Amino acid sequence: MKCRFCNSPSYVEIRYPKKINLCKEHFIEYFEDRVKKSIEKYKMLNKDEKILVAVSGGKDGHVAAWILKKLGYNIELFHINLGIKGFSDESLRAVKALAERLNTPLHVVDLKEITGKTIEDIRGKKCSICGITKRYLMNKFGYERGFDVIITGHNLDDEISFILNNVLNWNIRYLAKHEPVLPAHDKFLKKVKIFFEIDEYLILKYAEAEEIPFTTVKCKFAEGAITLKHRDYLNELEKERSGIKLQFLYGYMKNRHLFKVEEEDFQFRECEVCGMTSAGKICSFCRVWKLYKKKRKKENNKGK
Amino acid sequence: MKCRFCNSPSYVEIRYPKKINLCKEHFIEYFEDRVKKSIEKYKMLNKDEKILVAVSGGKDGHVAAWILKKLGYNIELFHINLGIKGFSDESLRAVKALAERLNTPLHVVDLKEITGKTIEDIRGKKCSICGITKRYLMNKFGYERGFDVIITGHNLDDEISFILNNVLNWNIRYLAKHEPVLPAHDKFLKKVKIFFEIDEYLILKYAEAEEIPFTTVKCKFAEGAITLKHRDYLNELEKERSGIKLQFLYGYMKNRHLFKVEEEDFQFRECEVCGMTSAGKICSFCRVWKLYKKKRKKENNKGK
Repeated sequence: MKCRFCNSPSYVEIRYPKKINLCKEHFIEYFEDRVKKSIEKYKMLNKDEKILVAVSGGKDGHVAAWILKKLGYNIELFHINLGIKGFSDESLRAVKALAERLNTPLHVVDLKEITGKTIEDIRGKKCSICGITKRYLMNKFGYERGFDVIITGHNLDDEISFILNNVLNWNIRYLAKHEPVLPAHDKFLKKVKIFFEIDEYLILKYAEAEEIPFTTVKCKFAEGAITLKHRDYLNELEKERSGIKLQFLYGYMKNRHLFKVEEEDFQFRECEVCGMTSAGKICSFCRVWKLYKKKRKKENNKGK
Repeated sequence: MKCRFCNSPSYVEIRYPKKINLCKEHFIEYFEDRVKKSIEKYKMLNKDEKILVAVSGGKDGHVAAWILKKLGYNIELFHINLGIKGFSDESLRAVKALAERLNTPLHVVDLKEITGKTIEDIRGKKCSICGITKRYLMNKFGYERGFDVIITGHNLDDEISFILNNVLNWNIRYLAKHEPVLPAHDKFLKKVKIFFEIDEYLILKYAEAEEIPFTTVKCKFAEGAITLKHRDYLNELEKERSGIKLQFLYGYMKNRHLFKVEEEDFQFRECEVCGMTSAGKICSFCRVWKLYKKKRKKENNKGK
C-alpha cells in the first residue's frame, strides 16, 4: 500500500472517518493537525499559558509533551516517583530521557518523601488511591509554582472505557464529569486532556514515528482492571464498525447534560491539613495517606 | 457438590446474590419461585386475564408458556411461520410438540399468506423488519381474538444487551423504553416480559430439567448481530463480578427516567391501511411489507 499523498509506503491505515493510508511523514503531519484541531475546537490552551505536562513515563504523556513543545507551547514536565518496584525506576529513566531530548525542565516529586510511604506500602484500592495521589500532587505542585494549566495524556480509549464503566455501574455523578477541559476553581488549576478525541493506537504510532523515548513497562497493580477489559471490548467493536469509539464519545458529549441531575450546591473549602481546595474538611489525599495523624502528632509534640 | 437443601448432587450453581448449589428438584422450585416473585413485584399478570404467549420454537418462549401453565394461568400459544429455510420448519415442529405436551391451543399464522413474502424474500435490515413483523402480527392476532396480554420470552440477557447497545449508540428515546410491563394503549395489548430479571442460563437449565421441547436451531440472519457480541461481553464481565448483569439492569431501572426527555406529545392514530394503532399515517408493518401498494391496487381494480 502506498501513501495517499505521495509514493512512499504506507506507515499507518486511518480507518475513520475515511479509510486512508499514510506514510510516516504524512502521518506525522496528519496527527499534529488532528491534535491542533482538538485544541482549537475545545479552546484548550493559549500560547501565553504556563503549562505543566504530567508524564508517567508512558507514551501518552510523552507524546503530549512532545507535540506541545513542537507546536510552540511553553511547557515543563512533572513526574511522581510512586515507588513501585520494577516500574517506577524504569519510568523515571524514560522521563529523564524525554526531558533531555526536549531540553525542557523536569520536576520530580517523590511520594515517599511526602507521605513516608509508597504505593507498594498501602492497603486497599491501590489504583483509586494512586489516582487521588497523582491528581493532588500535580495540582499542588502546579499551583504553588504558578502554572496555569495541567496537561494529562488521557486519550479517547481512556475516556470511553471510563464512560462505559460508569454506565455499567450507573455512576450518574461521574457520568456528568468527563470533559476535555476542566476549568480552574480556587486552588484547582485548569486541567486539559489534549488527546480526548485521539485514539491510543495513533498516539503509539506517532511516538514510534517521532522516536520519542517512553517505557512500555506496565504497572503490576493495574493488571486485570475492569476498564482494561472495556477498552479491549470497545476496540473489538471498532474493528467491526469503524468510528464506533469516536461516535460513542460524541454521543456522550451531546447527551451528558442528562446526567447533571444533582445540583452541586456544596461549597469547596480549604483542607484542614494541607490548605488545598477540598470538597470535605480533609481532602482525599490527606485522608488516604492519613496525613492528619502526622499533623496531630506534630502539634502534640509542639505542645509538650 | 451437593444440593444446599438435600443430599442429591448439584444440578446448577447459582452465583448471585448468594453462591448456592441446587439439585434438579430444588432448582425447579427455586426457578419457579423467582419467576413468581418477578410477576408479583412488577404486577405483571392476573389469573383472570386471557394470555397469549409468543413462541418462536426456542427455549425462552417455551419455558414462559410452560411455567405460566404450571402456575395456573390461562394461556394459549401464538407462532409465526416466517418462512426461513432450515429454521422455520424446525421451529414449527418444536412449537407443535410444546402445544401437545401442554395440551394448550396453538395459533399459527403464516407470513407469506399475509404479505405474499417471507423473511427470506425481503431486502434491507432483516432483523429489524422481522422484529416489527412479529410485534405487529402477535398484537393484531391477540387484539382481534380478545386476549388481554401478550407474553414474550425476553430475558435478562436480551434486555441488558439492548440497553448496552442503546447506550453505545446514545439512542436516548429507546433508552427510556425498556420495561417489564408495557401497558395497553388503544389497540396495543399489554405486553409482559416475565423473564425480565431472569438469566438466560437459568432458563436453559430449567428447560432441560423439565424436559421441555424446544429447538436450538438459530436463525441464520441473526448471526453476527452486534447485540450478540454485547451479550457475550456482559457474560464475560459476569464471570469476573457475579451480579453485574442484574445490577446493571436495576441501575438502569432506577435511572431510566433520566432519558425521558422528549415529551411524546404526538397522538397515536389508526393506520390508513390496516386500521391498527400506529404512530404515523401508515404503520411500520404496512410500510415495510408495502401493503399500501396492495391496497391501492385493490382499490384501482374496484374502480375499473
